[in-house]
Amino acid sequence: MALMNGAQYRESIKKLRPNIYKWGKLIEDPTTNPVTKAHIDCVAQAYDNSCDPEKEAIYTATSLSGQKAHRWNTLNTTLESQMANADMKRDQYRWSGTCVGATCAGWTGLNVLYAITYDMDNDLGTNYHERVKKYFQYVEDNSLALAGCITDAKGNRALKPSQQSNKDSNLHVVETREDGIVVRGYKIQICGIAAAHEVIIVPGSGYGESEKDFCVAAAVPKDAEGITIVETRRPSDERQESEGWDAPKVGATTQAYLLFDDVFIPNDRIFMNGEFKYSGAIIGTFAAIYRAAIGACVAGQGDIMAGAAINMARANGLSQKPFQAKLTEMAIKNEITYGLGIGAMAKGKQHKSGLWVPDALLAHTNKTQVASLPYEVKVMAQDISGGIAETGCIPPYEDFQNPVYGATLLKTMEAGTDGESRIRAARLVEWLTVGGGIPGCMHGGGSPDGAKMVVKAFTKWEDHAASAKRIAGITGVVEEPPKKK
Amino acid sequence: MALMNGAQYRESIKKLRPNIYKWGKLIEDPTTNPVTKAHIDCVAQAYDNSCDPEKEAIYTATSLSGQKAHRWNTLNTTLESQMANADMKRDQYRWSGTCVGATCAGWTGLNVLYAITYDMDNDLGTNYHERVKKYFQYVEDNSLALAGCITDAKGNRALKPSQQSNKDSNLHVVETREDGIVVRGYKIQICGIAAAHEVIIVPGSGYGESEKDFCVAAAVPKDAEGITIVETRRPSDERQESEGWDAPKVGATTQAYLLFDDVFIPNDRIFMNGEFKYSGAIIGTFAAIYRAAIGACVAGQGDIMAGAAINMARANGLSQKPFQAKLTEMAIKNEITYGLGIGAMAKGKQHKSGLWVPDALLAHTNKTQVASLPYEVKVMAQDISGGIAETGCIPPYEDFQNPVYGATLLKTMEAGTDGESRIRAARLVEWLTVGGGIPGCMHGGGSPDGAKMVVKAFTKWEDHAASAKRIAGITGVVEEPPKKK
Amino acid sequence: MALMNGAQYRESIKKLRPNIYKWGKLIEDPTTNPVTKAHIDCVAQAYDNSCDPEKEAIYTATSLSGQKAHRWNTLNTTLESQMANADMKRDQYRWSGTCVGATCAGWTGLNVLYAITYDMDNDLGTNYHERVKKYFQYVEDNSLALAGCITDAKGNRALKPSQQSNKDSNLHVVETREDGIVVRGYKIQICGIAAAHEVIIVPGSGYGESEKDFCVAAAVPKDAEGITIVETRRPSDERQESEGWDAPKVGATTQAYLLFDDVFIPNDRIFMNGEFKYSGAIIGTFAAIYRAAIGACVAGQGDIMAGAAINMARANGLSQKPFQAKLTEMAIKNEITYGLGIGAMAKGKQHKSGLWVPDALLAHTNKTQVASLPYEVKVMAQDISGGIAETGCIPPYEDFQNPVYGATLLKTMEAGTDGESRIRAARLVEWLTVGGGIPGCMHGGGSPDGAKMVVKAFTKWEDHAASAKRIAGITGVVEEPPKKK
Amino acid sequence: MALMNGAQYRESIKKLRPNIYKWGKLIEDPTTNPVTKAHIDCVAQAYDNSCDPEKEAIYTATSLSGQKAHRWNTLNTTLESQMANADMKRDQYRWSGTCVGATCAGWTGLNVLYAITYDMDNDLGTNYHERVKKYFQYVEDNSLALAGCITDAKGNRALKPSQQSNKDSNLHVVETREDGIVVRGYKIQICGIAAAHEVIIVPGSGYGESEKDFCVAAAVPKDAEGITIVETRRPSDERQESEGWDAPKVGATTQAYLLFDDVFIPNDRIFMNGEFKYSGAIIGTFAAIYRAAIGACVAGQGDIMAGAAINMARANGLSQKPFQAKLTEMAIKNEITYGLGIGAMAKGKQHKSGLWVPDALLAHTNKTQVASLPYEVKVMAQDISGGIAETGCIPPYEDFQNPVYGATLLKTMEAGTDGESRIRAARLVEWLTVGGGIPGCMHGGGSPDGAKMVVKAFTKWEDHAASAKRIAGITGVVEEPPKKK
Repeated sequence: MALMNGAQYRESIKKLRPNIYKWGKLIEDPTTNPVTKAHIDCVAQAYDNSCDPEKEAIYTATSLSGQKAHRWNTLNTTLESQMANADMKRDQYRWSGTCVGATCAGWTGLNVLYAITYDMDNDLGTNYHERVKKYFQYVEDNSLALAGCITDAKGNRALKPSQQSNKDSNLHVVETREDGIVVRGYKIQICGIAAAHEVIIVPGSGYGESEKDFCVAAAVPKDAEGITIVETRRPSDERQESEGWDAPKVGATTQAYLLFDDVFIPNDRIFMNGEFKYSGAIIGTFAAIYRAAIGACVAGQGDIMAGAAINMARANGLSQKPFQAKLTEMAIKNEITYGLGIGAMAKGKQHKSGLWVPDALLAHTNKTQVASLPYEVKVMAQDISGGIAETGCIPPYEDFQNPVYGATLLKTMEAGTDGESRIRAARLVEWLTVGGGIPGCMHGGGSPDGAKMVVKAFTKWEDHAASAKRIAGITGVVEEPPKKK
Repeated sequence: MALMNGAQYRESIKKLRPNIYKWGKLIEDPTTNPVTKAHIDCVAQAYDNSCDPEKEAIYTATSLSGQKAHRWNTLNTTLESQMANADMKRDQYRWSGTCVGATCAGWTGLNVLYAITYDMDNDLGTNYHERVKKYFQYVEDNSLALAGCITDAKGNRALKPSQQSNKDSNLHVVETREDGIVVRGYKIQICGIAAAHEVIIVPGSGYGESEKDFCVAAAVPKDAEGITIVETRRPSDERQESEGWDAPKVGATTQAYLLFDDVFIPNDRIFMNGEFKYSGAIIGTFAAIYRAAIGACVAGQGDIMAGAAINMARANGLSQKPFQAKLTEMAIKNEITYGLGIGAMAKGKQHKSGLWVPDALLAHTNKTQVASLPYEVKVMAQDISGGIAETGCIPPYEDFQNPVYGATLLKTMEAGTDGESRIRAARLVEWLTVGGGIPGCMHGGGSPDGAKMVVKAFTKWEDHAASAKRIAGITGVVEEPPKKK
Repeated sequence: MALMNGAQYRESIKKLRPNIYKWGKLIEDPTTNPVTKAHIDCVAQAYDNSCDPEKEAIYTATSLSGQKAHRWNTLNTTLESQMANADMKRDQYRWSGTCVGATCAGWTGLNVLYAITYDMDNDLGTNYHERVKKYFQYVEDNSLALAGCITDAKGNRALKPSQQSNKDSNLHVVETREDGIVVRGYKIQICGIAAAHEVIIVPGSGYGESEKDFCVAAAVPKDAEGITIVETRRPSDERQESEGWDAPKVGATTQAYLLFDDVFIPNDRIFMNGEFKYSGAIIGTFAAIYRAAIGACVAGQGDIMAGAAINMARANGLSQKPFQAKLTEMAIKNEITYGLGIGAMAKGKQHKSGLWVPDALLAHTNKTQVASLPYEVKVMAQDISGGIAETGCIPPYEDFQNPVYGATLLKTMEAGTDGESRIRAARLVEWLTVGGGIPGCMHGGGSPDGAKMVVKAFTKWEDHAASAKRIAGITGVVEEPPKKK
Repeated sequence: MALMNGAQYRESIKKLRPNIYKWGKLIEDPTTNPVTKAHIDCVAQAYDNSCDPEKEAIYTATSLSGQKAHRWNTLNTTLESQMANADMKRDQYRWSGTCVGATCAGWTGLNVLYAITYDMDNDLGTNYHERVKKYFQYVEDNSLALAGCITDAKGNRALKPSQQSNKDSNLHVVETREDGIVVRGYKIQICGIAAAHEVIIVPGSGYGESEKDFCVAAAVPKDAEGITIVETRRPSDERQESEGWDAPKVGATTQAYLLFDDVFIPNDRIFMNGEFKYSGAIIGTFAAIYRAAIGACVAGQGDIMAGAAINMARANGLSQKPFQAKLTEMAIKNEITYGLGIGAMAKGKQHKSGLWVPDALLAHTNKTQVASLPYEVKVMAQDISGGIAETGCIPPYEDFQNPVYGATLLKTMEAGTDGESRIRAARLVEWLTVGGGIPGCMHGGGSPDGAKMVVKAFTKWEDHAASAKRIAGITGVVEEPPKKK
């Protein structure tokens, strides 16, 4: 039994060395600082869920050592476990209204490294797999929240990492010692770091030999020496960080920039160091798992958008009925990303190491939908909810507190319910559609254009052309024209 | 071992009593008459596939009696078998370019009756399930092609079957004898009847007690006394039935109207007779299986559309490259219906009888996409292929044979390939998009509006509204307004 | 007064030398031969309309010589006249359900040549404009129907006309004599030729000096020596050409291939002969006029699709009400193409010659919508109408005449109306969506990809980028990266 | 000559009695307070444009008294003037990136009242039209910025204004005196009030006799006794109101709530007082003008989105080329709303009073597109721009100023340009898509569902059904089924 409840989790986060900044200032205690508190509360709730008899079926699974562990710490070896992971995510989104973020990418990274190091060890005689396994059990036994560091700052998109004027644009190894390595560089747009204990580092892309130094995978405590973390300014964060009803306080996510300034990593936490040939497999496997699961995430948020729109209609004094066709369309779009992700899992295969890997073609197809359908769901939520939700066109909380005109102002908001409830209902729709609740479904986990490249690569164009030729009864030559010289 | 090859299949069809008409005339031998020949050839190919070592993994499965049988005759008891069935369908579509149709609805009907009769027998003490089981084994052992009769002529949509001025608008029992029943009425738009041996009858909808007479399920030989079959006139059928290159000859489907004129059905082939309470379950289970699988069908046809568009671009003298973004979109749409159908299966459950039943919410969501995405794929195929494919704007085959201007006319068609090949390439696109190759993805297996009603029914609107209320921090009352009086 | 009624028109067509073929046979009298009759009847109706006091406001305008003439013969010199032309087209579509086709491209060609020859004469001292003017008056005074020949057979798309292995793939001048020129080659997919008196020839594209021979514009009698015309085989044409109710008989269009075998054209009918620098302007101006007006055409057909869907719902026994949201969407899509075309006209300018020329950017934008929205309207028509309309899944006319089962078969079709009316209602939807009524909105008048190239060319990207830079407060350099070497 | 420059305008605003609040505090000087300054600067720019020889063709027109006046003060009597008004709006959007807002609704309201009072006076013998005319000249001569007050707080949507528990939910007349009237109630979501001199009040809907008190139209100085104005909290406003680069400072709009607490309006400024029969005509005419013009607004913002996306691609180190297909789609969507609005104007008619009124069917069709296409343009801007623009996932301005890690942090942003420029480029995209630059295209000027009701009402369904019946050759009865009892 390796579970931790929310209170224990908060304590464990409090103990870490403070190294997170926002608004130019150090955050001494992330569990109470309004920049990070709501996010950590969300993650704490998921810890509590794993200890709650009514929720444990969703939130727990069996660890490598056979114990009950938080599901987000465990290895997915079957279709069932992978679907259960997706269902947990949808449940989390329904709780918080947005991405919780502290565990998804880290968990995916560790699962992937479990498989790729298996292949590396087999091919190269390294002992990375044993290290991963040991670290995996450590994570499970201590119920750690892991953030995942993939995206580098990159620099100029037209150049490779090694060609950047500032090599730090991409995280890289600067020194390999007997007992470990030293890394430096920038990992940016990292989700959930504030609520995590540790960080899983993987290469930002698949690389060739010239980019060997950038092929590093490892696990690092979030508060390791040399790491500076800066939180990002996302829509509506000021109102989320201050009191009042202008933003929901339940759901929240954070994203941060990590500056690695010569950070030392001991050997037992290094899972790749220069084996560039396997970097592509890390990214490919990561993407397949991530892009199959993300359909459940956006579906969970879509569920909340539907609910928020219903509340808003009623708050306006109307029934859900005249909007039912739109609501049903919302549900359809939610189920498409969810169901297509499940389909990708179902057509998956078990890797020799035991990891279940979804079908890449379907997973990447799903990414293209995750990058478009939630936008349509948002538009429908705004459509149903009316102008105040669409534009946030409501005076600030402070004005409603004004002793002279505040009470009158609140009366302007009364409709199918009291003024405050209607404001809250409208602000939730605003937050979900143009505010802090937007988790980044377009580029999160990579761009849809990248996904389309995979779809292109995995589709058997010549087979289809040959079938069509046969059906058409064509016997003449029909082939690509010669390239122009 | 209960397999049959294509030649044996053709012989078995030839033996049936001729009772199919088209153009006002009886078709003496459906295996040679051009109205039905191409369709029967397609089905024969699928029989051959089951005997082909390279294809048997796709086309065979294990029968109830443990033998190797044609996959389309077998009971689907696992997720794996159901996914394999979908993959067989996609493979068939890739062979023929369109619906083969002789087995899908009949097979689904029999699978469904296997489950529902199990419940009926349990609840009512009837012995329908044993009858189904016995019949199922007979079908497997003889490798029969089964058509499925669901859709009634219906009559006026605003009235129930019992209220129709002509009771025959819906198939019904007119007499129950000791040894069996007598049925009459019209089943219409029945797919694949020409290529089938027998017919599975199920009620056209879920009914209440007043519609008891219409709650009949049974198996009937296609050529039973009293059955008259009339084939329908679908786009381009005249050119498909005559010689020349104006329509592909490989792929073909047929759809027919069945007039039941007091047809006797013996007891061992009756699986429901008035048990109206179970009629809804038949339709519901049928729809879940059918609408999960149909994603694979339209994906298979979409594969051919992509291939046909590539051929056409090349036939025009162009490369596939400038059209790649559109081709990739086509592939994405194909994979959505396929993968979402697989997702519906993966979230399915095993019925007590052993039948694997897909998740209804996802299956019906898929139906809404099957009713829209293939249209978009068609438009892209036309877009890539150019005006001659879009409009069929090519002179008839006969003009190209004209001794005076035929040879010159053929020169007008030369481009990236010879004139005949280009015509054939264009005619395939025409056939797939405005011709005989269109299988009816909008209303086939029921309308998308019906599917949306299921999506509406299975979505937990109040749960979502409650979650949104909690996240928004609303404590006031937000509820449906009272109905106006 | 230069008007002609339908009967006079039919007589004038009957007098022309027979040179049209289909099914390998010569059509002796196009006004009675079922291949061309329905189309000619449609055009005759439009002639009658010009003589009908109730319709003459729509169908007539003032000719160059100040007389009342058929609107489709007149020069458009004002926004009002151009909008009136569009409204006439929408009215025609509402009459016939599809493209009438005999006058649109020819009329546009003549209007364009009026303007471009004005420029040519001004610049080059030629006297083409006077020739056009004289010919224009001849056309107006005799109320002639003009087809327009633009599209060449082209051959291999990757090569220029002069590089084709068969030079005849594109129409070209083979000899310039004192009294005229001789042309040969293929013009294909020519709309409405069967119902036209004469043909306006323009170059198929904008060309450079190497393609001088292909830069020819002229007017030719349809039955000139050396012209062979072959009609194309379009969806459902066999049923349209035979008796019965399986296709509507009112609306029809025809498209044909023209083989020019050394056709002589006298000087006064030659409007361009080698002046390649003006070939681009012909195509550009043609496209601007054509693509502004075509929005009215597809809107008119969309109106009929909406009406056909309403009829079909009622024929099924249902009210229009449950389908109102879809019907309103259909109306919206119809009005978009119509209104955007009108917008292109309103932002147009008068050419020095007097011709009103729509705004190219808006006209080409409209083409992209004409190539997509009508498809969506079709899908909605099928959606509302049900399976028999979608697939044409109804037995042929002949079976309903069968003495044995015909009467019973007709009963299967009874619903909200009698069987025959319901079949006719369904067949109209089929014809509009997968049948002969489809006028070719994707590639007709050029492809949407071509239109997008114009949109790209006419959009001020750098201006927009500079405005955005200013608004963003960017002072650094943000420019296109250097090209890779 | 009645023009005012930006400096004069600022002075005139400064002179008004301070009655605007935000954050619970009174804004003493709106021209310098950061809540309203950027907005007022935008409007000042448009005043300067009217005095700039290079811009005056766009920004000026002729006043009722024949003088050169700011175009936004003048009466539109011709298609040309209405199109020029649209072009001015597109130019304004290109300047500010968003809605300027101070003049549009007020100007439209005054134009509409010019026409409707003409009818009222004609029918009822009132002298409202003279009052409007006089006030119109006063506005033109003093170059006043007019806000428009249409939307009431409404209260419960299921009840009429007179049935609301709080009658103030809708603005109404509480007393009619000899010399004027007294009004009270709430007008909310009023655009541009901070930058306006006066306010045009019109009824919030078309009303019947029971709602007579709510049928009031008038002109009121913004700072009239009894008016309290509270600004709304819209996305990102805190960063727009503070220093730094986290939001652009050029473009800005404001929206406010107006509390009318027994405000007296003298007779010469009252244009309707209880004449309920004309309230519908006000709303109908207002909507037709507004919804035709709004296409130009969103097109102008779309132009900036395209430019911002190009900048962002380049800032990332990439060329515009790989994104060209998306950019062209953006341009197409921009031109659709612009051109369709122009089309609505071109099909308009001149009212007897002289006002040019666009075609309602096309104007409302345009509203449905304005409520959807800009969302698609936004999604494409995010797609091209990458994750930092999509989510705003960049640390706050303050962190980049931190002496310890600020300089390093800025290096993470360097790519195709310097770090600051790239942040500014990304923040502009964020602001345009999830920030303060969103002007409210869904519900602004009324909801798309309302527009669809107009499209439904103005489409001739029965005519289309009759045409389709004729084309189909139907002679039987096909009509709406009788209503169920």
